[in-house]
Amino acid sequence: MGKRVAVLLSGCGVMDGSEIQESVFTLLALDNAGAQAVCFAPSGDQAEVFDHAAGKATGERRAMIAEAARIARGNIADVAQARAADFDALIIPGGLGSTKNLCTHAVDGLQARVHPDVARVVREFAAAGKPVGAMCLAPVTVAAVFKDDSVVKPQLTIGNDKATAAGIAGFGAVHHDCAVRDIIIDHRHRIVTTPAYMLGQGPAEVFVGVEKLVKAVLDFCAG
Amino acid sequence: MGKRVAVLLSGCGVMDGSEIQESVFTLLALDNAGAQAVCFAPSGDQAEVFDHAAGKATGERRAMIAEAARIARGNIADVAQARAADFDALIIPGGLGSTKNLCTHAVDGLQARVHPDVARVVREFAAAGKPVGAMCLAPVTVAAVFKDDSVVKPQLTIGNDKATAAGIAGFGAVHHDCAVRDIIIDHRHRIVTTPAYMLGQGPAEVFVGVEKLVKAVLDFCAG
Repeated sequence: MGKRVAVLLSGCGVMDGSEIQESVFTLLALDNAGAQAVCFAPSGDQAEVFDHAAGKATGERRAMIAEAARIARGNIADVAQARAADFDALIIPGGLGSTKNLCTHAVDGLQARVHPDVARVVREFAAAGKPVGAMCLAPVTVAAVFKDDSVVKPQLTIGNDKATAAGIAGFGAVHHDCAVRDIIIDHRHRIVTTPAYMLGQGPAEVFVGVEKLVKAVLDFCAG
Repeated sequence: MGKRVAVLLSGCGVMDGSEIQESVFTLLALDNAGAQAVCFAPSGDQAEVFDHAAGKATGERRAMIAEAARIARGNIADVAQARAADFDALIIPGGLGSTKNLCTHAVDGLQARVHPDVARVVREFAAAGKPVGAMCLAPVTVAAVFKDDSVVKPQLTIGNDKATAAGIAGFGAVHHDCAVRDIIIDHRHRIVTTPAYMLGQGPAEVFVGVEKLVKAVLDFCAG
């Protein structure tokens, strides 16, 4: 039987939602591996809407679920409905939506709040011993989820950006530098991370890292 | 030297712009093959904005270039600036934006008008003997470009949908049924097409077809 994997999106676009290419690579790598992906996003509006051509915020309002549905071709549900019991793993693609929508790290730094449905679902997978994958900026959200946890201190990567790595450490997690084509595996907490477009110069090398992450996540499901 | 390929987008989302996964697969397959992709979209607003979660039009206005820039991570230009002389090939991903934004076939049927910058660029590549790839619904636009051409009668596929194939034939092109993992190559006009999500049930099989299309397009560049 193919594994069932929840994919948590935050919108549609690197500057205000999920990084599109990372999200699509996740869906491709899962399907290539015979796993079934089910997409989710949180309720509510994106923190902002960014014109990706002009390079500036527009002041528009767009809902996370409606925008993420573009990547998922309409097949998406509110993450409030996602239960770890129904899935084998959880994967969170990156993009600035990770630190603007899933949590507020981009604005609030170490005082970041995590979207309550996101915090609940990440904790639920971790508590069930089910693997969690996170790429690009999404590991910041994972670190923020566990910032007040005295036991879970995840080993994560966001590449080698010092300021972002300091944020990870500030939440009590441990950051490891990592190349774009590689992954960091936290065997204890079953968390897999890869830098993706935090370091990637183009689709080919980013896909290599995402494909390794997906394989490592599915390997945890098997054993 | 890697080949330079212009990728023509029409927005960001299967229902009102470019099909996102097909677009990303095109960029991935080109990068995997060592080719350089440069993304373009036409000026102007999308014909409509569609809520991909609720399944209905919203009445919003969104510009094709700004939305397509989400897929291209900001690296995009107006197709009015694209010259066939600067590229080795042109590829057009699908999505309903192909028949709503690049041309008006979704509304006007065989009376469809093609966006003038799109018609100009497609004709320019064809006249230069440079290959054109089109997937999913995008072959309808290619057929519409040549509808009044007494010489160019492209051989194309959109899969096996009878109504859409009749549109292709109505424009004077020749439709061939084709499986999702396969391609149709028009050797005379150097046009390569694949059904993609007109038939695809998921990312893995769509990527197989897109990767074959990209390889066939690049093979034309080599010889």
